Amino acid sequence: METVEKECGALGGLFQAIVNDMKCSYPVWEDFSAKATKLHSQLRTTVLAAVAFLDAFQKVADMATNTRGATRDIGSALTRMCMRHRSIEAKLRHFTNALMESLINPLQDRIEDWKKNANQLDKDHAKEYKRSRHEIKKKSSDTMKLQKKARKGRGDLQPQLDSAMQDVNDMYLLMEETEKQAVRRALVEERGRFCSFIGFLQPVVNGEIAMLGEITHLQAIIDDLTVLTTDPHKLPPASEQVIKDLKGSDYSWSYQTPPSSPSSSGSRKSSMCSSVNSANSSASRSSGGSQTHSPS
Amino acid sequence: METVEKECGALGGLFQAIVNDMKCSYPVWEDFSAKATKLHSQLRTTVLAAVAFLDAFQKVADMATNTRGATRDIGSALTRMCMRHRSIEAKLRHFTNALMESLINPLQDRIEDWKKNANQLDKDHAKEYKRSRHEIKKKSSDTMKLQKKARKGRGDLQPQLDSAMQDVNDMYLLMEETEKQAVRRALVEERGRFCSFIGFLQPVVNGEIAMLGEITHLQAIIDDLTVLTTDPHKLPPASEQVIKDLKGSDYSWSYQTPPSSPSSSGSRKSSMCSSVNSANSSASRSSGGSQTHSPS
Repeated sequence: METVEKECGALGGLFQAIVNDMKCSYPVWEDFSAKATKLHSQLRTTVLAAVAFLDAFQKVADMATNTRGATRDIGSALTRMCMRHRSIEAKLRHFTNALMESLINPLQDRIEDWKKNANQLDKDHAKEYKRSRHEIKKKSSDTMKLQKKARKGRGDLQPQLDSAMQDVNDMYLLMEETEKQAVRRALVEERGRFCSFIGFLQPVVNGEIAMLGEITHLQAIIDDLTVLTTDPHKLPPASEQVIKDLKGSDYSWSYQTPPSSPSSSGSRKSSMCSSVNSANSSASRSSGGSQTHSPS
Repeated sequence: METVEKECGALGGLFQAIVNDMKCSYPVWEDFSAKATKLHSQLRTTVLAAVAFLDAFQKVADMATNTRGATRDIGSALTRMCMRHRSIEAKLRHFTNALMESLINPLQDRIEDWKKNANQLDKDHAKEYKRSRHEIKKKSSDTMKLQKKARKGRGDLQPQLDSAMQDVNDMYLLMEETEKQAVRRALVEERGRFCSFIGFLQPVVNGEIAMLGEITHLQAIIDDLTVLTTDPHKLPPASEQVIKDLKGSDYSWSYQTPPSSPSSSGSRKSSMCSSVNSANSSASRSSGGSQTHSPS
């Protein structure tokens, strides 16, 4: 009898320890949520910086594409590099949104439910435990009275006493089973929290993995660029072609030796740049042969 | 004669156009450098936010590892997830450093060199072009004088005239070759800029690609976590074991029904949490069987 009583107490103690662990976990969850929110906000501004960076990168690529000489291949590879990074940036944006919408927001909502559930479990268990203990105590004291009477020679009470003692034992066994169920409920609740958390985490990690798919393409592009720029001091055939093409052309180019004063050279330069800049913004300019732009 | 003269002019014009393109490119390079610097600064703060996030993530993982019930496997998978992310964070840090040290800083230094080189090319070419034109003009005018004298009956001057005309022609051909060389130098200079740029870009892209290697491992971990949390309402055998273990134990757990007043329950709770928190910080705690902590 004493063993099963101790066992009920131990189960109750285990239940309480689990519930207390859960009750003490909120600062950890809330800290996680706060740090995730900060990371989300940082990632958002990083995405904006990445967009601006990629716009500037594309301008460098356009410049390479639009030179008179042979950097068109380089420009085209740089454009591919830029486009691939735009895909990475889109995936980063998606990952950043998933962090907030799939993880942080649902987690914060869930924490409130968790608090309610843990309190309810605790309350229900305490009530049930008290009720069982009270009933067993009452039955035990009745049994003890019966036992005293039986000892004083009331042998006819023996069957009633046996039945009462069996009842107390059954009540203890029932209580033990109830306590086990309470421990199971607490364990399921505790485990369920991590299951929910992992469910929220999944879309975020999937978003990360999706970025990976884009990054794999970078290797091929950087390899292309390495080959294209192996010998920076040797002009590729396409550059020589630009010079050859000039020979057969209608000589739309002409050169007038610049005046020696640096002041007038400055104004000349500024007028050039505006025309070059507008050319940079259109990717359709062809190099060699057909230029109609002539410096003077 | 007129053809080769026009050709020299066209080559000079092409040279000038290339040099002007280069001179006009600085705003594009400087914008790139500025946007890369902003991205770098954003990435740095993102790394810091990621470090704080991963610390909070590790605490959640520790919590799962240290529960009394069966979330130890979940905790261990979450810890692996966290460690893998710490590697990603280290790679991100490396990538961020490469952005500044391998790309932005060298590019900014190089822009200064580029400016000097383009100006020098322009200056040298103008000087050379002027010199050649001047010499050819002088020789041409001498030749014309000789031609006049020859027409006036000085037939003996014919061999001298032929030789002078040949000289003028040779000078034009030489000038054409010189101009071609100048165009080639300008093309090499322009192309070299992109070659340098790609050289600076390579360590950055390699840094990105290195992150990929870490991300691939995430798939296996998230798959493990999915399997572990498939059925949140069913306790795994390890949880039942905790209850069974209790039966054979020395009943170090005990349960005292809490007093009904909520005020004293509050103080009880706070004392629990401190002990649970200290347990959370040590990963060596074993679950089940040997607890010496008893709530009261």
